[in-house]
Amino acid sequence: MEFDLIRTHFEQPFEQLADAFPNRILRGIGDDCARLRPDDGQVMVVSTDLLESGVHFFEDASAFDIGWKSLAVNLSDLAACGAEPLGFVLGLGLPRVDGGWLSEFSRGLLSIAQQYDCPLVGGDTTSRRSGLGVSITVMGQHPASHQGFDRRHAQLADSVWITGLPGLARLGLLLESQSRGLPLVLPPFTHEALQDILSGLPNSLCDRARQALHKPVPRVQFSMAMRPIIHAALDLSDGLGGDLAHIASASRLGVELDEPALLDAWRLNMGDSMPDPAFVYALAISGGDDYELAFCAPETRADEIRWLGSRHCLQVTPIGRVCSSEGMYLRSLDGNVVTLSNASFDHFAS
Amino acid sequence: MEFDLIRTHFEQPFEQLADAFPNRILRGIGDDCARLRPDDGQVMVVSTDLLESGVHFFEDASAFDIGWKSLAVNLSDLAACGAEPLGFVLGLGLPRVDGGWLSEFSRGLLSIAQQYDCPLVGGDTTSRRSGLGVSITVMGQHPASHQGFDRRHAQLADSVWITGLPGLARLGLLLESQSRGLPLVLPPFTHEALQDILSGLPNSLCDRARQALHKPVPRVQFSMAMRPIIHAALDLSDGLGGDLAHIASASRLGVELDEPALLDAWRLNMGDSMPDPAFVYALAISGGDDYELAFCAPETRADEIRWLGSRHCLQVTPIGRVCSSEGMYLRSLDGNVVTLSNASFDHFAS
Repeated sequence: MEFDLIRTHFEQPFEQLADAFPNRILRGIGDDCARLRPDDGQVMVVSTDLLESGVHFFEDASAFDIGWKSLAVNLSDLAACGAEPLGFVLGLGLPRVDGGWLSEFSRGLLSIAQQYDCPLVGGDTTSRRSGLGVSITVMGQHPASHQGFDRRHAQLADSVWITGLPGLARLGLLLESQSRGLPLVLPPFTHEALQDILSGLPNSLCDRARQALHKPVPRVQFSMAMRPIIHAALDLSDGLGGDLAHIASASRLGVELDEPALLDAWRLNMGDSMPDPAFVYALAISGGDDYELAFCAPETRADEIRWLGSRHCLQVTPIGRVCSSEGMYLRSLDGNVVTLSNASFDHFAS
Repeated sequence: MEFDLIRTHFEQPFEQLADAFPNRILRGIGDDCARLRPDDGQVMVVSTDLLESGVHFFEDASAFDIGWKSLAVNLSDLAACGAEPLGFVLGLGLPRVDGGWLSEFSRGLLSIAQQYDCPLVGGDTTSRRSGLGVSITVMGQHPASHQGFDRRHAQLADSVWITGLPGLARLGLLLESQSRGLPLVLPPFTHEALQDILSGLPNSLCDRARQALHKPVPRVQFSMAMRPIIHAALDLSDGLGGDLAHIASASRLGVELDEPALLDAWRLNMGDSMPDPAFVYALAISGGDDYELAFCAPETRADEIRWLGSRHCLQVTPIGRVCSSEGMYLRSLDGNVVTLSNASFDHFAS
């Protein structure tokens, strides 16, 4: 049964994709181990992410979207290192076997795997008491000469950039919570204030925000093109405040965010439909699950960065700079610089 | 909090181990991805296993043992391919944070990681509703010229060998179930018959069986030494009947098990304390969780195999041969050959 399940929903759909890379995938699904050979002169990178129902997605989330997102968040880690996907292994813990659910999950997974040339090469399934758990480990490669956007390598006076709209996925989470009658949480706003703000947003923004939450797009190709330019990078999985603090602390430097520039990332995109700036600021600083890139690069490379962004149809915005005083700072709208306290998303909080 | 937890229980204890392999582990825990470089002329292998409380270990199992076994079962997959460990990533889903538990879990994990030169290079932790889930992906390497003990490569007239006592871990499971007042399951025996058999076993065997269940020893070094000899191998995670059927079907050949030889594996070890042969046979055929190796090799290499076994302090026993008629067969004590129906362990069976 377990073997039939793997064969029908994973081995058969993914066979062709693995076969398309015979020099890299020497043996895919079907043995105790998969065998991989990175291209000549490349080092291998690896990253792993766990997704749990009720924590990382709603219990009633679509199986297709869960399949998509489970691989997307892992590919986003490769993007944060400027790496090219090689393949992934899947661990799936299920409370029961549901053929229809597995078929949709596998379809979502295959869809993003094909888009990023990242074949499934092995896995494990098991029953569990309750809830669904997806564990993916993704393998990638980059040239041995590439530094891998190591978060310890930010340099003084680097500009800090982001792709996309920071906090957009958090807006998606608020909207999905609202439609399920769940409490709305985004400090410093009350549930009622958030109800009011959400009801005033244009439908087009709401659709984009839900899409950002359910089907994030990892910035793999852009990041590979940026290898010669970026010093340090990471993907925005825990919110801008917390994530950039990791670069600052690893590099023993500071990051000074520029509030007007942060708001510009949204304003340039939204025009007249720009929501309340205080709301946008809160989304950006403490919103997680974005899977956009934040990166540090020399100020002199701004034109190349903008050009590469537009080549990849990607909005890129400079939102601050690296400073010498260790910590996180905010240059607010009135020009004052204040210390920013850590506001990252913590899976074990409350 | 999440980052402190990782730092205290995983990054710090494992730092030295990763630092001991600076040419292989270019970047360990602490960034979006780990960076690995296999040695020159080696291909990389990868395997993943999920372990769930209530499925793969008892809810009250010791945290040290869970840490040990979680990596052991993954290293056993490397052994089944003749691969050398490089490193692993860990996914940990916890219903709550318990510092004492994490410390013991980390100690068990570090203990086996050190023994096999297999550093932790990255991971992810998350909260979950209930139960504990451990997901490990292990990376290894073997020379590009090595065929990896591919289970499709068994050859006609190969001898089939096993390491250790097949079914010993299943006996451990029966004993642990008995001490918890749980139903005892091992077809064709009844609960009552099993109670009788277990109460007659010597304490030394019971201790070894519990040990085999909780702290399996992956056969990594023996398997690496056997690279020039073995055609096809796998680790006994689902029971001899089911596991060998995978080699048979992948190689489009048959496996004929020899019941007297199978019992000999136990008899040579047990002497006068040998349990009822029908009980031993049932343990061996349908018992899972052994993480011993089963392998096919030319009959002419028997002496070398025995010599390498004794060099690694490992009992190795020939238990059958590869035959031309596809399927699984048993040559029973009376000399008759019967077809063996699949009796592997299925995680989704009731």
